Parts: sequence; C-alpha cells; structure tokens
Amino acid sequence: MNDDIIAAVATSRLEAAISIIRLSGTGVIDFVQSFFTGKIKDKKTQTITYGYIVDGDEKVDEVLVSIYRGKHTFTGEEMVEINCHGGVFITRKVLNLCLNKGARMAERGEFSKRAFLNGRIDLSQAEAISDMVTANNDEASKLALKGIQGNISHFIKDLKEDLIQIITSIEINIDYPEYDDVEIMTAETLLPKSVSLREKMNKIISKSQNVSLMKDGISTVIVGKPNVGKSSLLNALLEEEKAIVTDIAGTTRDIVEGSIRLGNIVLNMIDTAGIHDTEEMIEKMGVEKSLSLINKADLVLVVLDGSRPLEDEDMMILDKTKDTNRIIIINKSDQGCVIEEEGIHISAKEAHIDELVDYIKDSFDFSSINGEDAEVLANQRQLELLMNASKALDRSIDAMKASIPVDLIVEDLYDSWNNLKEILGEQAKEDLLDELFSRFCVGK
Amino acid sequence: MNDDIIAAVATSRLEAAISIIRLSGTGVIDFVQSFFTGKIKDKKTQTITYGYIVDGDEKVDEVLVSIYRGKHTFTGEEMVEINCHGGVFITRKVLNLCLNKGARMAERGEFSKRAFLNGRIDLSQAEAISDMVTANNDEASKLALKGIQGNISHFIKDLKEDLIQIITSIEINIDYPEYDDVEIMTAETLLPKSVSLREKMNKIISKSQNVSLMKDGISTVIVGKPNVGKSSLLNALLEEEKAIVTDIAGTTRDIVEGSIRLGNIVLNMIDTAGIHDTEEMIEKMGVEKSLSLINKADLVLVVLDGSRPLEDEDMMILDKTKDTNRIIIINKSDQGCVIEEEGIHISAKEAHIDELVDYIKDSFDFSSINGEDAEVLANQRQLELLMNASKALDRSIDAMKASIPVDLIVEDLYDSWNNLKEILGEQAKEDLLDELFSRFCVGK
Repeated sequence: MNDDIIAAVATSRLEAAISIIRLSGTGVIDFVQSFFTGKIKDKKTQTITYGYIVDGDEKVDEVLVSIYRGKHTFTGEEMVEINCHGGVFITRKVLNLCLNKGARMAERGEFSKRAFLNGRIDLSQAEAISDMVTANNDEASKLALKGIQGNISHFIKDLKEDLIQIITSIEINIDYPEYDDVEIMTAETLLPKSVSLREKMNKIISKSQNVSLMKDGISTVIVGKPNVGKSSLLNALLEEEKAIVTDIAGTTRDIVEGSIRLGNIVLNMIDTAGIHDTEEMIEKMGVEKSLSLINKADLVLVVLDGSRPLEDEDMMILDKTKDTNRIIIINKSDQGCVIEEEGIHISAKEAHIDELVDYIKDSFDFSSINGEDAEVLANQRQLELLMNASKALDRSIDAMKASIPVDLIVEDLYDSWNNLKEILGEQAKEDLLDELFSRFCVGK
Repeated sequence: MNDDIIAAVATSRLEAAISIIRLSGTGVIDFVQSFFTGKIKDKKTQTITYGYIVDGDEKVDEVLVSIYRGKHTFTGEEMVEINCHGGVFITRKVLNLCLNKGARMAERGEFSKRAFLNGRIDLSQAEAISDMVTANNDEASKLALKGIQGNISHFIKDLKEDLIQIITSIEINIDYPEYDDVEIMTAETLLPKSVSLREKMNKIISKSQNVSLMKDGISTVIVGKPNVGKSSLLNALLEEEKAIVTDIAGTTRDIVEGSIRLGNIVLNMIDTAGIHDTEEMIEKMGVEKSLSLINKADLVLVVLDGSRPLEDEDMMILDKTKDTNRIIIINKSDQGCVIEEEGIHISAKEAHIDELVDYIKDSFDFSSINGEDAEVLANQRQLELLMNASKALDRSIDAMKASIPVDLIVEDLYDSWNNLKEILGEQAKEDLLDELFSRFCVGK
C-alpha cells in the first residue's frame, strides 16, 4: 500500500488570512522538520508549533505547524498541517517547497482515500465528507454529518447481520442436511425473516428516495400537445414562487432549466425549452427523446385542453405516461370543460392553479423527513446498491415460496450480501475507488 | 480597550476540504467549550482537540479545535481556531453558531488591529502581513516576510536612536546653557551627526523607491506631437515582450492600460488611449491633464520625428518635460535624421528599438535589489513619512548652518521624530488605524 508523503492545499485558493497545506505519509513529521525552524520532532501529537518554513538559508514564510501522530489521524497515517499566510502566491510557494523537498502532489480525494484504505472510514463516510462540503442547506448538512458519524455504516451493518443469519442457517443445512427439515425451516424461519428484512430494506429505500427528492429537487417534465397551455402553466408555477427562475448548471440527470420552489418542495423543470417553442417540440425532440425524458422524470405533468375534445395526440400522450408518476391537468377551465378525463382542473392563463400546487405538495410529503432521521442513504450509488440488494432478496423469497432447493436460493442471498458490502466499500474495486475519490477536492 | 470575543472565517469562502473559524478575546476558550464536545478547558496552549460543534442537542459539525492561551498569541489575547469542514454552507453555519452564542463578527483586519494594540506587532509589521497575502511574486513575498519579522521596525528604531541623541544634546543645552558652547557643539557634533543621519534616511528612501518601481512597475507616459510614431513605438515595445498586453484594473495612480515586461522591468503604460488617437490627444487631454500625467510618471518617453525639422509643438513638449525622468527618442531613423537634438535613434516602424530597450533597462538597474536587502520600506505611506522626516531634518540642518538658535532648530527635529514614530504606528491616530486595518481581509 502507498504511504509516500503527499501534500495539497486544503483550503480554497483565494486570498485569505490563512491557508492550510496538508501532508500525510510515513515519516512526514521528520520530513517537514527538515525545512521548518520550529522543533516538532519530539512534540506530542495534536500540538501546534510556531516557526519559519525555510528553503536552505532563505526564510519563506512564518507559519504554525500542527502535527498528528499515530494511527488515529484522519488518514490513519502520520500527518502535518502547515498554516501559512493565506496569499495565493505564498501558499503556492510553500506547497512547491514541500513538493521540491520530495512530497508528491496529492490527487483529488487522496487523503480520504487513504483514510478509507487504512480503515479509518468506510465508503459511506468518505462520501458523507464530500456531501458535507457540497451541502447547501441545513437538511443536507445534517444528513452529511450523520453519514460522517458512521450512521449509514451502522444500519447497513444491521441489514448485513440479518442477512448473514439467514445465509448461515441455509449453509448449515447444506453442510448438515440431517440437522433440520429444510421445508419446515424455510416456511417457519427463513421466509418470515427474509420478508421482514426486505421490508426493512424497502423502508430505507423509500425514505432515501424521498430525502433525495427533497435535497436535490424533483425532476419534472411538462408534456402535452401544442397549444394546451404548457408554457402558461410553467409561468403560473413560476408566479406561484414569486421569484425568478434560477439556472442550475450541469446536473447528472438532464438539462435542468430552472427550479421552482413550492414550500419545501423544489421542482427542477427539465427541458422547458421545448415548452417555450411548443409548435416544434414534438418534431424536434422526437418520440424517443420525449419518452426517455418522461421515463426518467420524478414527476410528469400531463396537460390537456379541457375546452376541446381529446385528439389522437392526447390519447397517445396519456398512454405513454400511464406508468409514470404523473398528474393529469385539465387546463382552460375558464373556457368550460367538454372532456370526461379525470384530472385536476386549472386555468393556467388566469393563474388558477392552487388545487394543482396543493396536490403536488401532498404527493411529496416531506414533513416527516428530517436530519434526525437515522436510516437514510446519501446518494444514488448507495441507493442503487440497496435496491439491487432488495431485488436479489426478492428473488430468493420467490424461490423460497416456490420451494426451490436451498443451494439455489443461497446464490441470490449472496448477491444481496455483496451489494450491501459494496455500499460500505467492502467489495469496492480499485477503479471504482479512483472514480469515486476523484470527485473530491484536492486536500481532502 | 476592547477584548470582547470576535469571530471570523480566516480562510477564503469557497468550497475546500477545510475552513478555519478564528476567534479571539478574553475567555474565548470557555466560550467555545460551551458548544464544543471535546474537552479544551484544561488543555495546554497550542493543542488540538477533536470533537463536535453542537447547538444544544444538535451536532453541527465534526471539527478540530486549536487553542492558544496567554499573551503570546497572534492577537495577544486568548484565541481559538475551529477547523471545520470546508463547505460554504457548513462554514457559515458554524460561524453563525459562534455569533448566536455571543461572539461578535470581526471587522476587517480586527485580529491584526488587536495584535497591534496589544503591542504584539507594530504598524509596519501589520502592513507586512497584508503585503504577504497580496504578494504576487517572489521579491514581494520576501520583502513582506522581512517586514513581518520586524525588519522595518528595526532600522526605523536605529534612525530614531540617532535622532534622539541629537535632540537630547540640544535639550540638555537648552536646560543647561552653561554646559556647552552652543555654536561649537553645533558645528562639531550636531551638524555632522545630522548630515550623516539624513544620508542614512535618503539611502533608504532611494532604495525603497527603486524596490517599489520593481515591485509595482514603472508608470510610463509616451508624449509627442501627432504622427511622430507614438503608437508604432508602443507596438514595437509590445512586440519586444512577445506577449499580449495585460489589463490591470484600478491602480492607485492612474489608468494603467497595459504592462510591458522588459527583462525584470515592468512598464505600466499610462493613458495610452491618447496615443492610439493621436490627432485628438492634445485637445482632449488639455495641457493641464498632460502635464499632470507627465509629472506623476516615473518615466517619460518623449518622441520626436527625426526626419523633419522640429516644430513649436516639439519645443513645447521638450520644455515641459525637462524636469522629468525622460528619455528623448528620435524616431523614423529609417528616413534619415535632420535634427540636432540629442537622443536615442530608433525606427519604431521597423522595430529597431534595441538601443532604447537597453537604455531603459540600464536606467532602472534593479540587479542590486533583492529580498535580502535589509533597509527597504514596504509602501507609499511609510515612504512619505520617511521623506517628511528627511525634509524636516533638512530644514534643521539648514538652520544649524545658518546658526539659528537651537530652541528653534529643535522644532524641526521633533517633526522628523514624529514622522519616524508614525511609520511604526506609535503616533497613529484611531481613525488612521481604522482606515488602515479596514483594508485587511476579515479574519486577519
């Protein structure tokens, strides 16, 4: 394992009073001692020493140096932090000196990666540190702190414990078939245990999905044939917020064109460009593109014109969206209603959309979610792994019910098990780790 | 004196691995203890403690807290630094908690101001800290570090010592006129001592001016009547640099339109707009404006057209620039020379300007200046005060030579003395301090 000395600026690179240059690796205290005038060689861990960083005879900066000994440091290695003056040039100069003296420039996230590899934190905790830095609201920062404290590790370990008990029972039965009657054991013990475990998993999944929608916003698409009033609806929703649409750059999902806040709910409007230019929307996007957007969205607002009979195009849209989380909106209530379709009646033009807004708010009830909530995953990676774990468990439950031989059932259970382990990075492969930690800041 | 608890973010406010929240004031360790789970109350100075920042029952962030006790801290007061996660939101949240618990948001430069008021640093050292943060090259950072180490204080105190000896001799003579023969004392002791002191002062002034030209660049004006080739000269100089002109925003002196680097010399071209539009230049700027630019410039490039006889306008320009640091340039050498005026012959059009470039480099010989140079002032404020001190000394020397009564001479010496004291802030008035420290970053 690598434990060479790495260095990076851990604070941001703008002018400030103080910058921190962080170093980690075996022998780093002796290393820094070689170009620092204060005496740190014999100092205790977690002490601060005043002195100068020197390059030969030349004093470079007046600094405070913090040292961290033993295995209980952030990275699990010996560490040093140099607090130098916070100028852009001087910070760079001190860092360059560390590099010239033999330290290696840390890769993004390399400090956290070492902490992970040294068993100081698991993958969910490493992700939580990153989440804390990017958190931009109170709930997000509370959740991140929970993650840092090892909250996710804790409840995933509980799930693993339940699962390993089920697996162990089966393995014993395979090795010692005389020990128990398989069918009785399956019906009386394994099946109820598995069902209860699946329930636990699904509860976490559902809560985590809700939290993710709350934290990151609900990706929302407005669909409808031309001239049903899609852009009027968008404008009315914007009006509701009494605020200007904010631009959000580069999300992972799709082009979010603006966000609308309704109480504690944030709607991220996807591809609203198509809405502003309704005539060309269908042609431009093509049916495939539309369908892909619709299927990826957390919420689909289907707009119909209630003042005219439905046309083929409306029926097509209703059909294509029937498996989505959709709300059917019957617009132009100011011009009466001639259609039978059930839905929420609005007049976007007259900004009569209260019922719709209330309905959206009710469909996403976040009131029960808060930072105190223990069992919540932090991100899509963790969520997908837990969903995989749950699906694998599902398959084994079906198999148990169908009285499939236990040695076949156990495969699915191991699949579930491996997914749980991957959440904590226990099965993580090196390339996944590189990918994951490269999203971190340098110096973290 | 104020020693209430102040707090500020000492790192810059962008996403990073770590942020530092700095606090200072009497009782600040007990104060932070009230919302920090680690035990710091009984810890020694310069130790680091791990724990959580808490708001009642709610954990806010996982942090490292550094404490500084006694009078040997940066501010001279008890201090605490909270190293929290470097997210913008979480940093703000921890800072806000400190403020809600009773700390006051620090004003810009208030930490340094307290250090000054508590006698930890003098004014020249405080300025040097600020210079270190804004330093953008090696020489500037070396000079700033010299200042931080108290270098300026040191040689200003030497000057003060010399001066006080002169003043004391006179004061004794005023109190005990029987003690010495005034005229003999003046001629034999005071005058040579004063002249030698003035020499010391002027040497520092001249060296500091050179360093300032090297650090900040040489403000340069090109003058000449229309069509003598001013913009060709500018272009040829730019060509010399083999680089694009860089825009420098808002300098204190005048509009710098671009900088040209010639070796280790930087020419800051002033008001080159007038050059590009030569026809209108004289009218637009008016004679007053031109003169003012010319008189403020460190270097004036006077351009004449050597291929035609001089005109009245040329003579006027030669006359107006005669007291400046000018170089007379005879352009259009490719078309022969019909004028007698001495100067450097160039052909701007054909980019034959080598001789000029060498001449400029020779006129500003910075090779002897380096960061090791001990006796250099840091800024215009210090320079002006020392120039005032020197001028006052000048007056007293004239008075000594004219055998003016010593009790009149002493007035000028005290004036000189006060100017020296002001460099170190010993005479600084409260409003000057506020003005001075307000240019600092928050948290410094």
